[in-house]
Amino acid sequence: MYRSHSCGELRTSDINKEVTLSGWVQKVRDKGFMIWVDLRDRYGITQLIFDEERTSSDVVEKAKTLGREFVIQVKGTVIERESKNPNMPTGDIEILVSELNILNESHTPPFTIEDETDGGEDIRMKYRYLDIRRNPVKDSLMFRHQVAMKVRNYLSEADFIEVETPYLIKSTPEGARDFVVPSRMNEGQFYALPQSPQTFKQLLMVGGMDKYFQIVKCFRDEDLRADRQPEFTQIDCEMAFVEQEDILNIFEGLTRHLIKDIKGQEISDFPRMTYDEAMRTYGNDKPDIRFGMKFGELNEVAQHKEFKVFNDAELVVGIAVPGGASYTRKEIDKLIDWVRRPQVGALGMVYVKCNEDGSFKSSVDKFYDQEDLSKWAETTGAKAGDLICILSGQGNKVRGQLSALRMELAERLGLRNPEEFAPLWVVDFPLLEWDEDTERYHAMHHPFTSPKPEDIPLLDSKPGDVRANAYDLVLNGNEIGGGSIRIHDKETQALMFDHLGFTPEEAKEQFGFLMDAFQYGAPPHGGIAFGFDRLVAILGGQETIRDFIAFPKNNNGRDVMIDAPANIDQGQLKELHIQLDL
Amino acid sequence: MYRSHSCGELRTSDINKEVTLSGWVQKVRDKGFMIWVDLRDRYGITQLIFDEERTSSDVVEKAKTLGREFVIQVKGTVIERESKNPNMPTGDIEILVSELNILNESHTPPFTIEDETDGGEDIRMKYRYLDIRRNPVKDSLMFRHQVAMKVRNYLSEADFIEVETPYLIKSTPEGARDFVVPSRMNEGQFYALPQSPQTFKQLLMVGGMDKYFQIVKCFRDEDLRADRQPEFTQIDCEMAFVEQEDILNIFEGLTRHLIKDIKGQEISDFPRMTYDEAMRTYGNDKPDIRFGMKFGELNEVAQHKEFKVFNDAELVVGIAVPGGASYTRKEIDKLIDWVRRPQVGALGMVYVKCNEDGSFKSSVDKFYDQEDLSKWAETTGAKAGDLICILSGQGNKVRGQLSALRMELAERLGLRNPEEFAPLWVVDFPLLEWDEDTERYHAMHHPFTSPKPEDIPLLDSKPGDVRANAYDLVLNGNEIGGGSIRIHDKETQALMFDHLGFTPEEAKEQFGFLMDAFQYGAPPHGGIAFGFDRLVAILGGQETIRDFIAFPKNNNGRDVMIDAPANIDQGQLKELHIQLDL
Repeated sequence: MYRSHSCGELRTSDINKEVTLSGWVQKVRDKGFMIWVDLRDRYGITQLIFDEERTSSDVVEKAKTLGREFVIQVKGTVIERESKNPNMPTGDIEILVSELNILNESHTPPFTIEDETDGGEDIRMKYRYLDIRRNPVKDSLMFRHQVAMKVRNYLSEADFIEVETPYLIKSTPEGARDFVVPSRMNEGQFYALPQSPQTFKQLLMVGGMDKYFQIVKCFRDEDLRADRQPEFTQIDCEMAFVEQEDILNIFEGLTRHLIKDIKGQEISDFPRMTYDEAMRTYGNDKPDIRFGMKFGELNEVAQHKEFKVFNDAELVVGIAVPGGASYTRKEIDKLIDWVRRPQVGALGMVYVKCNEDGSFKSSVDKFYDQEDLSKWAETTGAKAGDLICILSGQGNKVRGQLSALRMELAERLGLRNPEEFAPLWVVDFPLLEWDEDTERYHAMHHPFTSPKPEDIPLLDSKPGDVRANAYDLVLNGNEIGGGSIRIHDKETQALMFDHLGFTPEEAKEQFGFLMDAFQYGAPPHGGIAFGFDRLVAILGGQETIRDFIAFPKNNNGRDVMIDAPANIDQGQLKELHIQLDL
Repeated sequence: MYRSHSCGELRTSDINKEVTLSGWVQKVRDKGFMIWVDLRDRYGITQLIFDEERTSSDVVEKAKTLGREFVIQVKGTVIERESKNPNMPTGDIEILVSELNILNESHTPPFTIEDETDGGEDIRMKYRYLDIRRNPVKDSLMFRHQVAMKVRNYLSEADFIEVETPYLIKSTPEGARDFVVPSRMNEGQFYALPQSPQTFKQLLMVGGMDKYFQIVKCFRDEDLRADRQPEFTQIDCEMAFVEQEDILNIFEGLTRHLIKDIKGQEISDFPRMTYDEAMRTYGNDKPDIRFGMKFGELNEVAQHKEFKVFNDAELVVGIAVPGGASYTRKEIDKLIDWVRRPQVGALGMVYVKCNEDGSFKSSVDKFYDQEDLSKWAETTGAKAGDLICILSGQGNKVRGQLSALRMELAERLGLRNPEEFAPLWVVDFPLLEWDEDTERYHAMHHPFTSPKPEDIPLLDSKPGDVRANAYDLVLNGNEIGGGSIRIHDKETQALMFDHLGFTPEEAKEQFGFLMDAFQYGAPPHGGIAFGFDRLVAILGGQETIRDFIAFPKNNNGRDVMIDAPANIDQGQLKELHIQLDL
């Protein structure tokens, strides 16, 4: 037996016990006559003491050879520490070592195994197994497990059944790019890895499973933006005989439970907002509502004077920045530079300082008088001491720019407290969105999303105005979940495919099995999927998902630790009936 | 809201309640003036009654249009049934319907949605979503979920952390064939889908995770024998600072817990048997020990006479078939035909009838006297009334043949009771096995399995005799789990690769990351993996895994429901830098 206790559990109540511990050497302090070693495992750190007077000399000699990250086993007696460390759970005791067994040596690790490491991202990824020894990564992975367990137990208690859907499925041209898998046994044919179990979970509803969930890996072969992974994990859910309200209630319950259970925070009913309202109020379909700075649309009160920039704009819109009236000219110029960066893309910014004395000072005083500016303040909710930032231009474009500015300012003002949780349902998403590249409408969510029945007549006349029974769950400015009530009859599904530009033959080839299924008694159904990596990161108070994934890939989709993807040999290609085409 | 209750929950205590139910029409009995409909959902069946005297005529008319598997919603009153059905949980009540809403019609399903269906395997797979509506499949999937939850909660309670390992990894030539995934972003390179998370779980141990598990999909591109799937699910586990004994105890605990919790059966300590003993006693490394018929090796008592067949044989071995003395000549001839089938491959069979009067009658009376035969009876444990079946030939070959006969006879004799559970640890597996095709030794388990230290000197002289720290958990004649203590130092791992025919360069290219990791403080570690599909099936009392998998593939690796794999278009191939080579 390698150990009688872990390195995290011994206390003063264990004093005088003979124990065996195993773990890694975190630190060695060699005072000559006395050596202290911090011994680490997943559960904590225990201090070992080798004392010339009380430890046999060969053991002391062996202890002198120990280096960082050596794996050792020790036997010894639990004794009281002379100088206790109240910051460590085991800080009251130490182990007087009688026997030392070096289980494995270690090269000097390429970065320090400490909470704050000297290792950069690249080296940490290459030696991920060392990075995982660090508390921030180890704790994140353990936290992920706890969240997964809570989700599973909650949904299982609520009668959901976790069903494993297949990973080797069929490629579909709709949506993002698929990863594909050549079939050896079916010459010239390919499986695809699922972008989500969407059709399978719908078939489970047709199959009467009633309430389904799965914590499941999904795959998208997309060019990777920062903090995206080619393989990612979803909490995938579907329910039969439900309306949107049922889904919202159940998964609001799950989310509330997680926040309560993990963070101890009680959240009352989640606010709901239509997509249109979210776009108008926050310029964003996943608004962070932990703070205000709501948009004030200023067309009415800003397009009546000679200021051509505003008069020519489709939309003039502003936000009030709390306390911003004190910004210096230089600070404001920097803000203007910030919104003009290509990533944001505004042409310029108008501002109004709301002075403490009730007067206003703006960058467009030439065109607008105090009464105009006071109306702007009223519309944007600006108070004395605030700064109003105003952008103008084409509707949703300028909204996006102002949203970026709003988020940036909130960050600078410290309004994005990671320990505060502000969930929000955004509902009534558009069914379709126009794609500039292909010059046609795409499904905003996916082709199985049901349109609101009352909007179906608009499908031909104003497709962009058709609203869907689709909803997103937003948490602190991140979309953590999204779903919809699905189409469950063949006719509507065929109509939908038609509007998405599928010929009936294409629809049949790609999704014939689903449309067939709809003819054998498909119940009304709907569902939701949560991005699990993101959800865990946010609940963990982090912005990036990478430390919550054991073995993430880099932005080129490479696993730099195992060096994958890699070449495969000619024989393997031949068996798969493919050859390279470089 | 589609329903106030499920179809499984209403009881006499609910009488007079106004309820709303939704579900599928299981059965319609139309007596003209009265119509009964069995309404089904996941939770059960509730009887609906449409009564000309109490139900409005338009509702009755609509009810007359209902067909099997229509999806309907009804409102009505819970009333007491006139003729109760004690076999149904809802059998005391029925719903007097006041409102009927047809949510979706259904074509006549291609097979009956009943426990005993008229649908063959092929049609059931094509319409799997209908098959899942049948209780045997639905219950199997729900059972699978329950087992998974129990496993997760048990291991989580025992401090195991579920860590998701990547699905897009690197192809390795060792072991079975990989499924590969061409990388679009890394031209000419491929990911592989994991055959198991083996190296990653070992790296997690190097990373200090201490106790890991994962219920995870694995992939093998093998020619599929019956009841094998190209994608299958493992309970994958690994622990650091453990010896074989620790692993056996922990996972014996898990298995005992499952059998107790699911089947209510207390199992005491699992027996343990070496591989050698299992082969000698049962001719099989996964013996079914629910019944006896242990092998008796007869060389000593059968090779002293003039019977050339036995004298020329490496091994003469027999089993006693309980009650077999009463078999007719014809029945015995059929047994002989059975062992001579090519699938078994014996050349013939010698038998001895142990008569009730203590005398023996054998097919080799010409060569052996009663005293000889009585020794055979003693060696095989045959009692009066038994039949001794004896095969002879090359050692392990004849053991396999006799094992097949033993299993077949046990099946015929009803000794394989699916509700009885007889687990067994088989330990001390050989490290290497000789492969006739490649004429070299392969790792019997995998190349990371540690040899028993005392056997390492045999690696050069008698590689086949080297025993591994490897073990299998056998349940009712099925290997449900297997694992080993791993190598955790670079030198032994290099030695192992060398003996498996890897050049140092190949070893470095394929597994360099693992050998590197071993140089940075790798702890001793080991683990086990359970075949989850099989485990669930056996616990569910079934022989085949297919009904415990929601969407299984057929023996050609095809999903006949979605028709995958399938062709992909030229543009997609081009993006992936491959072309077909047919």
